[in-house]
Amino acid sequence: MSILDDCLAAITPVDEQARAAAEARQLSLTKPPGALGELEVIGNQLAAIAGQCPPPVPEPAKVFVFAGDHGVQEHWVSPWPQEVTLQMAANIAGGGAGISVLARSAGVEVEVVDVGMLQPVEQTTDRRIAAGTADMLHGPAMSREQALAAIEVGITCARQAVADGHRALIPGEVGIGNTTVAATLVCAFTGASAEQVTGRGAGANDEVFARKQALVARAVQHHGLADGSGPQDPIGALAAVGGFEHAAMVGLILGAAEARVPLLLDGAIACSAALVALALAPDAKGYLVGGHEGAEPSIRHVLDAIGLRPVAQLGLRLGEGTGAVLAQPIVVSAARVLLEMATFDDAGVTEEHL
Amino acid sequence: MSILDDCLAAITPVDEQARAAAEARQLSLTKPPGALGELEVIGNQLAAIAGQCPPPVPEPAKVFVFAGDHGVQEHWVSPWPQEVTLQMAANIAGGGAGISVLARSAGVEVEVVDVGMLQPVEQTTDRRIAAGTADMLHGPAMSREQALAAIEVGITCARQAVADGHRALIPGEVGIGNTTVAATLVCAFTGASAEQVTGRGAGANDEVFARKQALVARAVQHHGLADGSGPQDPIGALAAVGGFEHAAMVGLILGAAEARVPLLLDGAIACSAALVALALAPDAKGYLVGGHEGAEPSIRHVLDAIGLRPVAQLGLRLGEGTGAVLAQPIVVSAARVLLEMATFDDAGVTEEHL
Repeated sequence: MSILDDCLAAITPVDEQARAAAEARQLSLTKPPGALGELEVIGNQLAAIAGQCPPPVPEPAKVFVFAGDHGVQEHWVSPWPQEVTLQMAANIAGGGAGISVLARSAGVEVEVVDVGMLQPVEQTTDRRIAAGTADMLHGPAMSREQALAAIEVGITCARQAVADGHRALIPGEVGIGNTTVAATLVCAFTGASAEQVTGRGAGANDEVFARKQALVARAVQHHGLADGSGPQDPIGALAAVGGFEHAAMVGLILGAAEARVPLLLDGAIACSAALVALALAPDAKGYLVGGHEGAEPSIRHVLDAIGLRPVAQLGLRLGEGTGAVLAQPIVVSAARVLLEMATFDDAGVTEEHL
Repeated sequence: MSILDDCLAAITPVDEQARAAAEARQLSLTKPPGALGELEVIGNQLAAIAGQCPPPVPEPAKVFVFAGDHGVQEHWVSPWPQEVTLQMAANIAGGGAGISVLARSAGVEVEVVDVGMLQPVEQTTDRRIAAGTADMLHGPAMSREQALAAIEVGITCARQAVADGHRALIPGEVGIGNTTVAATLVCAFTGASAEQVTGRGAGANDEVFARKQALVARAVQHHGLADGSGPQDPIGALAAVGGFEHAAMVGLILGAAEARVPLLLDGAIACSAALVALALAPDAKGYLVGGHEGAEPSIRHVLDAIGLRPVAQLGLRLGEGTGAVLAQPIVVSAARVLLEMATFDDAGVTEEHL
């Protein structure tokens, strides 16, 4: 059995009994019913994920920054030259990038995994599939084998992190052109139009944005995916219009579900990967926590489609995993509420009258 | 000179030059311009508050939970009996309440300050003004001297915390009936109607809610404050329709501005106190960071009036300072971005083309 088949076979739904136990426990804690709002919803989900109430505190967390390059950037769908993928991967590994700082601040470990940049970069983990994907306007971006290999990199990362003691996983990425790829995947897996889900990524001007949007529409058309038929052959659709880091994230999501640890979604790339992962394993849904809703329109589109609410809405559009890392301390707090808050009985507090 | 006069005289506007320096520095960091969204806005404000760029990291933070009782609770404006103020103050001091857990998770220190509960409670700091306020429907809730004394408790708390090394302050509270008082203050200071700003607090049912709203309207009418004329005599209006913990928070806000440290607003009580503080010292505004927008409608009303955006929106309605404590790690991250992120020059990253 392949790593992917093995992983898919191991994924089961989250534990609704544990969620119900958490919901009941919330009512016994010294607060008005529901007074911790979303924090209660998240805490109850953490119980369902772990299958126990109170749930284990989901830390330490680890963010995997998957780095890849994209053939479609030949068309300048991003104003940043492709060499920036390599430079930013080195900057992240060196501790100077946005994700480096935010992860340090939140006590989250960072590993940069090269799944297919144009060239190798020191201080990154070598899991290279190829030197960038092919241009999806002229054929599939990846072969089926390449897409599967990248997914398995993600599964292996998840397994290793959990074996090392990590209790929450965050998918991050760097790859010039990868929001174009993400928008194409969202069209292919939901039937959304390019207009609905294409955004300005890291800062496209009007000219670049128009080109990007047109290109997303052409790509789904070219591969016969404009009708949203991606879920009928998820690996095939991913290979056609995906990217190495998107595929690795699919694997990380599946690996988190297999290990029964929460995965904090972040940004457009991770959201597009979630659609592919859920097409392969619908039961993985319960393990996803909506981290941050950034500026890309596809994020809201996917979160709505999946039925997730984001923990944070801070208007970030940096990628790298930054939004989810900001949400991580809030997710930790949600677990600690169930674990540490006193009950009305413990504290001798009178319950409400009337 | 009184403590309050001394404090008011020391408050100056935040440093716009330092903010401009931070804005310029953001553009040199290895990210697309503006890509960290609200995190950049907060970081730039922290520079303006401290008068230096990069700003100092605003930690450790301290939350003061001011505890008081309210004469207006005679009318059962909350479904919780008044003894719950004492019980919850003990629970917070004992480490079992929501704020206790969330503060521990965020590395924030908690001190419960009794500014006027019905009875003293062990493990709380005794700064008692009286055994609860008077019923604002039959006269002023506090005398002018009592209101001033409570404000000065808050100023003294801020000064002591900053002397002890704290670099961010959070106002928290416990006091059955205090959202009724907060709504009345918001009406008195903005001219809003009771319908606009009265909420269900910790969970009023329809009957309690209707009584609460009517009572807020009667109270501002009774004291001639329905026209929003509170700012003409802020201490007088605060004494008429305020509470001890509201007044102490006014002092904490003023003390934070005096010490040039950020103050994270949390919830309906802190927002109502901010209106009083800004009526006394408009320059204190720049030191306020919008922490969390909870469920009470007065929060959005006040944040809009002041011109603040909340860091978090998690639907909390617990009070105690919980929302702002959840926002604290994000505020810390905003400072660390300016301090720790590499510049394009440092990291040898190419800037965008086109």
